Amino acid sequence: MSDESLLRQISTPRDLRGLSVDQLGDLAAEVRRAICDQVSQSGGHLAPNLGVVELTLALHRVFDFSRDRLLFDVGHQCYAHKLITGRLPLLSRLRQRDGMAGFPEPHESSYDLFSVGHAGTGISTAVGMARGDTLNDEGDRRVVALVGDSSIVNGVAMEGMNNAGTLNRQFLVILNDNGMSIGKPQGALAGYFDKIRISHAYTGLKGRAHEVLKHLPAGHWIEQIYHRLGEMTKAALDHSHFFEHFGLLCIGPVDGHDLDGLITMLEEIKDIDRPVLLHVKTVKGKGFDFCSDDPTTFHSPKPFKVSGCRVELSSGGRSFTTAYADALTDLMNRDEKVTAVTAGMPDGTGLSEVIPRFPERAFDVGIAEEHAVDMSAGMAKTGLKPFVTIYSTFMQRGIDQVFQEVALQGLPVRFCMDRAGLVGGDGAVHHGFMDIAAFRSMPGMALMAAIDEPTLRAALELMRMRNDGPSAVRYPRDNVPDAVQGERTPEFQLGKANLLAGGNDLAVLAYGFPANHALAARSELAREGISVAVYDARFAKPVDVELIRALTEARVPILTLEDHQTIGGFGSCVLEACNDERLPTESVYRLGLPDRWIYQGSRTEQEAEAGIDADGVVRQVRRILAERGSSAGRRLAASQTASAAPAATVRPLRVTRR
Amino acid sequence: MSDESLLRQISTPRDLRGLSVDQLGDLAAEVRRAICDQVSQSGGHLAPNLGVVELTLALHRVFDFSRDRLLFDVGHQCYAHKLITGRLPLLSRLRQRDGMAGFPEPHESSYDLFSVGHAGTGISTAVGMARGDTLNDEGDRRVVALVGDSSIVNGVAMEGMNNAGTLNRQFLVILNDNGMSIGKPQGALAGYFDKIRISHAYTGLKGRAHEVLKHLPAGHWIEQIYHRLGEMTKAALDHSHFFEHFGLLCIGPVDGHDLDGLITMLEEIKDIDRPVLLHVKTVKGKGFDFCSDDPTTFHSPKPFKVSGCRVELSSGGRSFTTAYADALTDLMNRDEKVTAVTAGMPDGTGLSEVIPRFPERAFDVGIAEEHAVDMSAGMAKTGLKPFVTIYSTFMQRGIDQVFQEVALQGLPVRFCMDRAGLVGGDGAVHHGFMDIAAFRSMPGMALMAAIDEPTLRAALELMRMRNDGPSAVRYPRDNVPDAVQGERTPEFQLGKANLLAGGNDLAVLAYGFPANHALAARSELAREGISVAVYDARFAKPVDVELIRALTEARVPILTLEDHQTIGGFGSCVLEACNDERLPTESVYRLGLPDRWIYQGSRTEQEAEAGIDADGVVRQVRRILAERGSSAGRRLAASQTASAAPAATVRPLRVTRR
Repeated sequence: MSDESLLRQISTPRDLRGLSVDQLGDLAAEVRRAICDQVSQSGGHLAPNLGVVELTLALHRVFDFSRDRLLFDVGHQCYAHKLITGRLPLLSRLRQRDGMAGFPEPHESSYDLFSVGHAGTGISTAVGMARGDTLNDEGDRRVVALVGDSSIVNGVAMEGMNNAGTLNRQFLVILNDNGMSIGKPQGALAGYFDKIRISHAYTGLKGRAHEVLKHLPAGHWIEQIYHRLGEMTKAALDHSHFFEHFGLLCIGPVDGHDLDGLITMLEEIKDIDRPVLLHVKTVKGKGFDFCSDDPTTFHSPKPFKVSGCRVELSSGGRSFTTAYADALTDLMNRDEKVTAVTAGMPDGTGLSEVIPRFPERAFDVGIAEEHAVDMSAGMAKTGLKPFVTIYSTFMQRGIDQVFQEVALQGLPVRFCMDRAGLVGGDGAVHHGFMDIAAFRSMPGMALMAAIDEPTLRAALELMRMRNDGPSAVRYPRDNVPDAVQGERTPEFQLGKANLLAGGNDLAVLAYGFPANHALAARSELAREGISVAVYDARFAKPVDVELIRALTEARVPILTLEDHQTIGGFGSCVLEACNDERLPTESVYRLGLPDRWIYQGSRTEQEAEAGIDADGVVRQVRRILAERGSSAGRRLAASQTASAAPAATVRPLRVTRR
Repeated sequence: MSDESLLRQISTPRDLRGLSVDQLGDLAAEVRRAICDQVSQSGGHLAPNLGVVELTLALHRVFDFSRDRLLFDVGHQCYAHKLITGRLPLLSRLRQRDGMAGFPEPHESSYDLFSVGHAGTGISTAVGMARGDTLNDEGDRRVVALVGDSSIVNGVAMEGMNNAGTLNRQFLVILNDNGMSIGKPQGALAGYFDKIRISHAYTGLKGRAHEVLKHLPAGHWIEQIYHRLGEMTKAALDHSHFFEHFGLLCIGPVDGHDLDGLITMLEEIKDIDRPVLLHVKTVKGKGFDFCSDDPTTFHSPKPFKVSGCRVELSSGGRSFTTAYADALTDLMNRDEKVTAVTAGMPDGTGLSEVIPRFPERAFDVGIAEEHAVDMSAGMAKTGLKPFVTIYSTFMQRGIDQVFQEVALQGLPVRFCMDRAGLVGGDGAVHHGFMDIAAFRSMPGMALMAAIDEPTLRAALELMRMRNDGPSAVRYPRDNVPDAVQGERTPEFQLGKANLLAGGNDLAVLAYGFPANHALAARSELAREGISVAVYDARFAKPVDVELIRALTEARVPILTLEDHQTIGGFGSCVLEACNDERLPTESVYRLGLPDRWIYQGSRTEQEAEAGIDADGVVRQVRRILAERGSSAGRRLAASQTASAAPAATVRPLRVTRR
């Protein structure tokens, strides 16, 4: 039987039951190759997926997840699970439109319970399902949560664990401990995990003696369970484990690549009627040396090519992330009060460039956004100038801390929100589309956006100088475009927009990156005789009221443009400003993200779907002018009657880097 | 020296230095009496403050917090601290306008570093200040965080602890363990704390032997510190403490009412150059039997009277909280799929009435809002109908979970937000003014508000029936007013407003409780010949577009009214709807909370300050009509010329219950 045929024969996890352990090993190898081949072509999460192949197969072999519950935490380790639950045919379109999502996705399969991409939530949803199944008289459905060693120390995960410890039923947490976060794991517990790894040599499960067991005090409740466990499991009971304080029976660490051992262990513990934590040691990137040797680079790589022992990553252009890292480095060189903070995303935020240069002033606190915000508030209170860099979507984790420890205190914490707007392949779980809405209700907040590298630098400089309150800047997961005004880019002045290109028929007031689309649209519309002004709005709070007044009084229609939810976003700020100033809004039109979810695809496709790309702006401007019956609109109507050809695509968008 | 004179002699903590330990004991008794006397008159946090009197005095005796840093967690235990840092004169106006805030308040004193009321953040801000002081070459400023046993298991606190463990400098966490949350403590760790309390009898610190010490392995790093500690401290080292896994040296538990012992202990450990956790056992409500016997009732009581051994709590009216508890009980009686969840606020949310009736279906997960949301999402996934009851302000802790685990999955979790709007004495840290802004950007969300008990019941019934997506209802910290329509209250229909009283000159579109003020204003305005319609808007998402269209087309000015931040609130929803429908907004006016902080005071005062009370509505309507020069406006202008008397207060507002 060839390797290939094995994976193709698995259409449901039930098909695993017919395979011997050796065959499962062959299947694991095949799954690994399939994942690696695909990620090398399309990019995607690699190392985390390679690390859990045996664990995934063992889980599906022992449990029946058509009925039992498997909850992924984060979810970027679900590829093997997807391949054996009927989604092999989707693999070739990994993270692409209508292809296989990179995270668990209930729309794809009932084997995926929650679409997740933010860390730490799996235990809590699992507790909820356990309670729910029990209340529904289906308490025989087993519940398993698969959590990584970096997510398990996230706040919500620890809250979940604390509550899980009160369950009186089967409940299994698998701690997938690869000693790696997305970057290097952070915090004191990471050191603790290191220690258990060393003190419990996990190799050769069967060779371990009763050394742990004999330390149990007589009458301990674990004893009762002990008698139900097999010899091997007993040896692995860990009475001094951190998580035991949460009321979980802790077992391990065990070897996460020993299929035979895993299956035996899971069989033994699957029906323990108390919460159990099984500590599994895995190797991130297992199976390919280039990947296990450098699991940070290959956590979620761009496409790459393996030739012999050389691995070549496809190069992108210059990303906003890189531009940010360089700008922040400059600030830190110039101003020793500037500090930098990231929450477990040193690579994704560019801070991996900054931390080695300023080890005293740059901090990765691990996946702990709430702590990152509050620690920064504390630093600001001492007169430092913290720049907290967190993806827009993960910033949602710290809203309450931004409210209480930052805004209410009036502290000048600077929030730098990478991945604002649409994020491409990561899809709905990672779009940054709510930050303006959540931040702008807080008194004293200054909100701005960058459209290119010079404006990013200018915004950061304003933020550095602003010591009387909090501020935030947003920028996308994209490459920096050609600078619109280059060195002529004016400084940021609080609440002032910036004219990028003049025009008479309509003004696009663009917030952030889509300003580039507006400029492209302007060129296209100019060919039709429509004269559009494009403003870089720069500020969502405070908005440029004077500009809005001037445009309104000059009876120039305004189109607001943004890559944020239209509800509660920048356009809404403009409407509110008009209303406060008693200016009419009939000539204000809003274009932004729709009130529905946008799934994985390229950023280009997603922007087109939302209608906020250059074509979308062109269409919208035409529609507005036609509706208004302006002279430009009348010219347009005439020209469209003359040539009914579909609108040409206006300007090729840059390829997203990651 | 009389007791009274002692407290009056303390104008700064430095004055404590001249007192003997016996005198400090007398001072403690005096502080207790002062607090209890005041709270009995004005209401406020009682039991938590009584529990930490000795601890506070000992801390201020040993540390110099004019330079050292004292960070409170939650902050409802800061009264003793305030009284000895110069704020005794403010006590008589506790929690009142321009009086002493009930939480730490930097505007009052530089001894208060952060105004806090949401739990779990003290360790993280302390870590930030420790890092900041060190970077500022002021590493000699000691840092102390005072945290309760319920807040320390909150997510952000555990994140903070994990990061604190990496500090290489002095850092002291005081775990104030009173074995009590606001209600009964929840979660497995609570049981663990119980266990250490029993296994380490903490009475008579000096009597304890070296039993802990002798278990330390040779060469353990604690040994190095050990030699710097005195005999007493050594005895209290706890090597198996939960928090030791976070890298903290754990000491205790020690008796938090033994002033002599506390001072000696703090002197010994104050300069340990590593993170230390001192576990202090206190009695919540210490000093008054009625209070320590029932610390839940006296956590934050209304005014009360002590006569002999009888304590009489002043009775309020019927609160929205009670109405909610009764309505939820009815739902749970009628529908066995309904479950109830609170996050550490069983009394404040009314769930303390519900949990004993439905112990299987009602859950208090402790101060863990993130977990509460995710657990509810898990329950919804199994087909249950969870109603999660969290104060609007604390809901901010779970925004990301509402986004990912609820809205993105389209799960019908029901959010019931008590304390929406202005909260009175608790002040700025507790107002619920951002929930609409944060929730409405999420696709599929239905947002509604209740104005009285029948509408609350109707909203909950719609939520119970809605199984295709998430929903939320908000209601204030107030008594239910006389029902506007009583039994004639129409059912809630998604996106439909409800006419409460007709009128021709202007329509108030009120969202939530302020509808009652609008009705009062309507009566007043009627006397001036102004005819105002009042609508209960009911829905912020989706808003009633048909009504808005009809009013706009009839050229009736619309005044939106809400007790939410005007920025991003209900009025903004109306503006967006108009804009989407291409309806003019010149006749739309918005009245809501201003873009600044509103501090403690009565709800009545706060509503007046914000201008959203009946008087405020009257003024606003007059202004609008005058500005518009309508016939009603012209009548008004004439009548005002005739009688320039100041506007009478329209309708006495009900007294807030708590």
